[in-house]
Order: sequence, then C-alpha cells, then structure tokens
Amino acid sequence: ARFNKPDAEIVDHYTYCILGDGCQMEGIAQEACSLAGHWGLGKLIALYDDNHISIDGDTAIAFTESVDLRFEALGWHVIWVKNGNTGYDEIRAAIKEAQSVKDKPTLIKVTTTIGFGSPNKSNSYSVHGSALGSKEVEATRQNLGWPYEPFHVPEEVKKHWSRHTPEGASLEAEWTSKFAEYEKKYPTEAAEFKSIITGELPAGWEKALPTYTPETPGDATRNLSQQCLNALAKVLPGLLGGSADLASSNMTLLKMFGDFQKDTPEERNVRFGVREHGMGAICNGIALHSPGLIPYCATFFVFTDYMRGAMRISALSESGVIYVMTHDSIGLGEDGPTHQPIEHLASFRAMPNILMLRPADGNETAGSYKVAVENRKTPSILALSRQKLPNLPGTSIEGVAKGGYTISDNSSGNKPDVILIGTGSELEIAAKAGDELRKEGKSVRVVSFVSWELFEQQSDEYKESVLPADVTARVSIEAGSTFGWHKIVGSKGKAIGIDKFGASAPAGIIYKEYGITAEAVIEAAKSVC
Amino acid sequence: ARFNKPDAEIVDHYTYCILGDGCQMEGIAQEACSLAGHWGLGKLIALYDDNHISIDGDTAIAFTESVDLRFEALGWHVIWVKNGNTGYDEIRAAIKEAQSVKDKPTLIKVTTTIGFGSPNKSNSYSVHGSALGSKEVEATRQNLGWPYEPFHVPEEVKKHWSRHTPEGASLEAEWTSKFAEYEKKYPTEAAEFKSIITGELPAGWEKALPTYTPETPGDATRNLSQQCLNALAKVLPGLLGGSADLASSNMTLLKMFGDFQKDTPEERNVRFGVREHGMGAICNGIALHSPGLIPYCATFFVFTDYMRGAMRISALSESGVIYVMTHDSIGLGEDGPTHQPIEHLASFRAMPNILMLRPADGNETAGSYKVAVENRKTPSILALSRQKLPNLPGTSIEGVAKGGYTISDNSSGNKPDVILIGTGSELEIAAKAGDELRKEGKSVRVVSFVSWELFEQQSDEYKESVLPADVTARVSIEAGSTFGWHKIVGSKGKAIGIDKFGASAPAGIIYKEYGITAEAVIEAAKSVC
Repeated sequence: ARFNKPDAEIVDHYTYCILGDGCQMEGIAQEACSLAGHWGLGKLIALYDDNHISIDGDTAIAFTESVDLRFEALGWHVIWVKNGNTGYDEIRAAIKEAQSVKDKPTLIKVTTTIGFGSPNKSNSYSVHGSALGSKEVEATRQNLGWPYEPFHVPEEVKKHWSRHTPEGASLEAEWTSKFAEYEKKYPTEAAEFKSIITGELPAGWEKALPTYTPETPGDATRNLSQQCLNALAKVLPGLLGGSADLASSNMTLLKMFGDFQKDTPEERNVRFGVREHGMGAICNGIALHSPGLIPYCATFFVFTDYMRGAMRISALSESGVIYVMTHDSIGLGEDGPTHQPIEHLASFRAMPNILMLRPADGNETAGSYKVAVENRKTPSILALSRQKLPNLPGTSIEGVAKGGYTISDNSSGNKPDVILIGTGSELEIAAKAGDELRKEGKSVRVVSFVSWELFEQQSDEYKESVLPADVTARVSIEAGSTFGWHKIVGSKGKAIGIDKFGASAPAGIIYKEYGITAEAVIEAAKSVC
Repeated sequence: ARFNKPDAEIVDHYTYCILGDGCQMEGIAQEACSLAGHWGLGKLIALYDDNHISIDGDTAIAFTESVDLRFEALGWHVIWVKNGNTGYDEIRAAIKEAQSVKDKPTLIKVTTTIGFGSPNKSNSYSVHGSALGSKEVEATRQNLGWPYEPFHVPEEVKKHWSRHTPEGASLEAEWTSKFAEYEKKYPTEAAEFKSIITGELPAGWEKALPTYTPETPGDATRNLSQQCLNALAKVLPGLLGGSADLASSNMTLLKMFGDFQKDTPEERNVRFGVREHGMGAICNGIALHSPGLIPYCATFFVFTDYMRGAMRISALSESGVIYVMTHDSIGLGEDGPTHQPIEHLASFRAMPNILMLRPADGNETAGSYKVAVENRKTPSILALSRQKLPNLPGTSIEGVAKGGYTISDNSSGNKPDVILIGTGSELEIAAKAGDELRKEGKSVRVVSFVSWELFEQQSDEYKESVLPADVTARVSIEAGSTFGWHKIVGSKGKAIGIDKFGASAPAGIIYKEYGITAEAVIEAAKSVC
C-alpha cells in the first residue's frame, strides 16, 4: 500500500506460516490471529498441521474445540485438506484458493498423520519429541519404498527441484528491471523502499532528535518519548507501531499518520487492542521481515509480564524491537500494585541481549531513542514515567550511550566523598540529595545509570573514571527492586529501593511512604562515608 | 464429584465471572475458556459486559471478531442479552437458562452502554478510566431521576435487599444440618472436605516426605519431585494439578489417580494442554477457592515467561500455588537456547512474595516441598533438573527451611579460608571443588543456597554463622545469570554463571564449554583467598 503504484507493483509476495496443535492452544496465537482477521490480511496463509498428537498424547485429552469454527469467528477464510499425507493436489488447490481470497487471511487445516510412514510409531507422541531410532528408520524406509542410502538425493528429485533455479533467476531479473524503472519514476519512494529492505538508516537521521536544557519546562518522559517518536517518524521510513489499547496513556500516536487498518494499510499507527503478547510477536515479525522496519510497541511497564515470551524471542532472534514501556514505577500512583512494576527493571537487566534503558529527562529520552534505533540486532526497552520530571543539568544524549555517566561532581582527583547513583525519575532525587550534601561540605558525584548493559560495554578505564574502585561510599536510589544493585554499590554501599509490592496513592505520597526520598539518600550517604 | 453422595449434595454452588471487552482480547482468556469448554464446566457462568468501548475508544478499531461464534467453537452455551442496561428480566432469565445447562459452561453476552445514564460521557472511553467529575455526576443523577444525597440508601432499596438476610440464614442452617448428617455417615470424606474448606493440614503430613542418604542412587530432581508429589497426594486431600502438555517430562502425574476430565471430575491429574498462562490463572482460581486446595502446575522453567502474569498474581493475591519447573538450566541439553533458562532465577528472586527454590538432590527436593506446602499465602517455584544428580552428604529438609546452610566445612572458629556457594545442580560442583581445595590444605565451607528469600528471613546471627562478614573470599556457582549474586559474594568475591544465551549440546559438553566446572570454582577460589 505504501510503495506499489498503478503502473508498478514492486511488492507482491505472500506470507506463509506453519502451525501445529500446540500453537493453536497458546493464547498468543489467538491474539495474533484475531488481529490478522480484523486487518483482513489477505496475503497471510497459515498451514495448520492438524495431526492430533502433542507431547502428552492424543490432543483429545485437552483440546477439543472446533478450530475451524473459531477461525471463522475471527474472520478468516478456512479450507480443510483432509488427506495431508499424500493429497498433494488438494494442498496445491488449497494454496491457490487461499491466494485468491484477497480480503481475509486463510487457514488451511491440513489433517495429517504424525510420523507418516513409520510402521510402529506413526500417530503417537513417541515421534513428537524423539528420534525414530535406526531400527524404525529402516522399517520406515522399507514401508515407504525408499531404497537409497542416507543423505542420497536421487537424480529425479534433484532434476525436479532444479527447475526452480532458472525460474527464480528470471523472476529476479524481471523484478530488478521493474524496480529500476520504478526508481526513475518514483525516486523518493524508491529511496525509502531501499532504506527499508537494506536497513541502511538515512544519513543524519539522529539530528531529528530533540534536545533540552535545564530551562525547558519539565515533562513526563512518556510525553518526551512521544516527541522523539514523532520527530523520528519524519526521518525513518521504517518506523511504525502502536500500543496495546493504551495509546493515549503510553503517548505513542504518530500525529502525521492515520491508523493502520484494513482499508488504510499505508498508515503507521497500529492499534493492537488488549493483546500484549500478540503485539510483541507481531513486532518481532515486522522487525525480522526487513532490516529497515523499526517497530515499536507499548503498554504499561508492569504488563511486560504478559509479553515476556515475545520479548525474550526479540533478544534471542536479534530483532531490534523498541518497547515503549510507560508508568514505570510506583510513581504511576492510584492504579496500585497490580499496575506498579517493582522487579521488572531487575528482571530485564538479567536477560541477555536486551537493552534496559531508564531515562531521567528529555535529553536522556532522546539519547535512549538514539541507542534503540541504532541497535537493530538488540531490542531496547524504554522505561518511562507517568509523572512530570525536570530537565536536569548535566544529562546528555552522549552520556546515555555510555550507560552510566557523571552528571555533576564537586570533587577533584577522582575521589569524591560519596557517589550517588540514580536512574529515571530518581535521578532528580539523587541530584537533590547531592546538592544538600555539598552544602554541608561534602564532595559528591552524582551518576546517572540509565543502562547497565551499555555501561558494562565500556572500557575498564571509563568505568573506573565513573565509579573509582577506591570510592566505596556509594548510594543508589531507584523506585524498584534493589536486586542486583549490590554489584554497583559494593559491599560497603547502600541500595535504596522497593522490595515489596506497591500501593495505591498519589505519586508524592507513595514515594514518601516508601522512603524514596532525598532525605533517605542523605541519611544513607552519611552512614557510608 | 469427590464429596457429594446420592443422599447428600453438600457442594452445589455455581461460579460466576464477569469479563469485559479487554478480557476477551487477552490470550489468557482464550486458553482458560478453551479448557472450560473441553471440561464441560456446567457450573461456570460468565457474564460478558459487551459495551464496545475500551481505553483507546470504540473496540471496532481492533476487535471485530465474533465472540459468540468463538465461544460456540470452544463448546460453550451462548446467550445474548440485548438490553443489558435495563433488561433485568432478560438477565434473570439468562442466568436461569445458564444454570439449567449442565454439560457446558455458559457465556451470557450482555450488551450494555458504558457509563449508562451519564448524558455527556456515556458510550465513550472517557468513562472507562476516569471519574465522571462532580458536574457530570450531577447531570447523571438528574437524568436517572435519583434525587438522594451521596451515599444515601433509600428505605425501599434497603428493604428490597434485606430480604436476603433471613433467606441466607435459613440456607446456611439447612446446609449445616445437612453436613452434620453427612459427617456421621461419611466421616472420612467429611474430614477431607473440612481440611479443604478450612485449610488445616492433616497432622503429621510432612512425615510422608521421602528422605535420602548419600548412598541412595542419584536421580534428576524432576524425578525426585514426582516421588514427593505422589507421597504428598496420599496425605493431602487438596493436592491436585498437572502440566502444560509436558507431564512425562515434568514428571507430574499422580500415579494413584486418573485424569480430571468431563466424565471423571473426581480425579486429580489435570491436563492443561499447551496453555501455560491459562494454567497459572486456573491454579490461582483453585488456590483462592478454598484454603485447603493446593494446586501445582508444571512446564519447563523457561516457559515461565509465558505465564509470568499469572505467577505475579499468585504473589500479589497470596495464592500458594506450587510451580513445578523442570529443565532448569543449560543442563537440559540439546533443546538449545529457546528452552534453556538463563535469567529466570534472578527474575523471580527479584519478585516480591514468591519463593524461588532450587534444590540440589533428594533431601532438598523434599525440603522444598515441605516449604511449598506450608506456605499457603506465598507461591513457590521449584526449579528442577532434567539431568541426574547425586545425593550429597550434608543436605537436609531442615537446611532448606533456612534457605542457605552449610553442607560441609573443615574450618574452625567460623573462619574458613574460602566459602563456596552453589544451588541446585551446581551444588555438586561446589562440593567437588571444596574436596579438591581441602586436599590442597585449604579450609573450605560449602554452602547450599537453595532459597534466597528464606535465607533473608533468618536472624542476623544465623546469617553471620553461615556467611561471616569477615570471610570475604567467596565464590558462587550457578548455571544461570550472575545478576544479583554480588550481594552474596561481596565486592571481593567471584560469581560464576552464564550471562549470555545457552546453546544446543549434551549437558556435559555445554557445562564444560560454558565454564560451569569444579576447575573454574577452584581457580576463582584461589584468586580470592
């Protein structure tokens, strides 16, 4: 919808997926398939291997719903191939029919026998998770009339498949010449399209990011995030995304675009509904489809619990999804403990290949987006505040790239009396405590620790310049679990945080009740130095 | 099915639930509702508030499936009440009809107007998450003809509701006398039933737990877990549960019982299918239904990512579900990084009110079950090995209750040269390294750190007796993220673990490749002491 022209159809492929009985039982599939039906994704064709066997045996013990009827309810076209073992013509006809249905995704239910051909193990759970074993392999070869050696490809088979080589070469040449013409006629669109299929970011894109000074009025980082997203959408053709029914809370709408819907698939605001897990999976699919597609998705930070499976797949699949996670602490206030994340920062810091970023203000939000966009093989999570925060002196886009950096210091010789470390909304508190302690004559360094993973990547020399080994008087403050902080503050330092569930109250009151205050930092600092 | 007798129906209630459009979009609801249909839960009646509004506005932007048809596909009886705002007779009739359908759960779709009665805000997202405001409250009162003061209950309303007081008292008296008779006729069943509704565990239940000696042949802790579950099922009438299609891998079948199915609801092995999130939610429901019901559920430890939302609800709702999580490290071998947990231990140690237990052998597995059964208001997670482990000298049921304890020590005066700390399958490695170091003349303490939360609950004196502040030479080993371990090993200690994704290889090979070995512990120990 974005790139095809009446005289040039340069995108014309289908997307196929194969799923089994287990996939059909998982809620994530229901979420994604409900959206696929809503969007009328006529180019999506799913082949469902309906073999009635899962690890615990016959699916009749736990799975007796009518899958066909459910997919019809979701707005899919449904075809049933009754003989999936040898009904090649039926399968071909079903795929043709699916391609011809343009306004709905298609589920082709292909009824098969698991382990087809194995005389003693077919149609049983024993071929689901284990190898057949050499004896049963032999029996299966005999049963199927396959007289060849292992790994031998008979000439006839090779010939049959090799016909695709010239076919494919000719299709590729055709497309290349079509695209060359397209490039001449539509240079702007062609440049955008190339950026998306190659993943090369437009030169100077990062200049679009807003910057802030301490004089800029304070704002919630979720609002600053929306400023960044809107600025980036103008320069990054592959940026698209949305929220799981919280767009107006997560602040994720791109103001210059409309909604991606069945009749407006060229638009870029995606409405995921209340489907966090499906949302994450869909964004993984988008990111892995083309290296220049940069999907973002959003919900309250605590609801990462609903989509953690998809987030780990982002990390493991090197899919650079941007997770815009707002309402990132007890600071969200009245919604209470069901909505207040506590252990979530720690839980993602422990996950490999994912960047957990918790910006403190405007510059750090912009810096977090710079990191997130650049890291196309590592997903990023931005933890953002619901509440307003000031723009702090000393924060910077460059600082964020190092993960941890000094925002203020009145010491000399890399030997402050105490180092105060904060992240996100608590950096302001650390800075306040620093000011107070300095008034009392202490030399104090205040460090923003916006991303542990990025700090870990820095040189030992840089790390020592921020957290000198000799300065053991350290205090950290973060409105979340203290779990993990002892690595940073050391055995002699103190970690201020929250190791119990939250409570329902306005942000100011709950911060005080939970001891997330400058007074607590000052007291801790005095006790360690 | 377990307690009613032809001459005494002592359990006869329905379970009602209310759900909205958002609930219908979430995959967890699909998982649970698919099972409810499979089981034919005729006493489950769900009222669906079909108001077409969610936080982002009209649900038409993201949710256009046919819910009615989907529930029919899941095997539910579906009734549609078209006027849910004022159609009281229709609602009453629908509930009666639902009660009369005995072989299927019923969904009553009740079409309503959100904010009904509010002249300016009804039928819009602005009444979903915000208060009406005093002006609109006033307009709504006028519109509905409600002339009373705030919080005033008119006499007529009070009278109407008060008729339930004598009705309820009479129903209670009737049941109490019925149960007294039941108790005389069926004393065994009555005792079990009372244990379930009061939550009082049968005296001496813990004696059923198996114990082991170092001479007992080694076994995987998942197999030892099955021994415990089967031993406990004999003495705990409320113990029931199962696995998400991995019963034969998680080793969760209770051998003396059959499957809980539509026609055998008196049985106790639950087949959840591949539905982890729904499984966790169902177990929360079971645990919160009656204090003596002790549900357990199982999958591979890495798949806690799919059910984390439900697990956090266990913690927050004080629902003592037992999570039997096997295949707890790279030690599971060939299934590779998609199946190998890395950050999961850390992620749960950071979560409030949940016990993360990682037993090392038979005694520790039994000890973990003792803790899990006793903690009815705190859920427990047991991380269990796929691979065989030896029964170690020094482990004990009592030790587990303290979270961290010494299993061997050749030092005197609470001053070992070094403390080696392991959990689960790596305790064996720590013990081996300890033996080697002792041969070289070192005094070594080996500590099992089976549960951080339980250790945290101990007295400072006890903690000092296990981890004396003066002994800073400490090495931990665990086949998972090192995140968090620095609190235990201190600034001068070393944490051996895995801070990247796993790989596919047999357990022995991957342990060596990832440096989870006694040699690594010995080397680290020498570097710190």
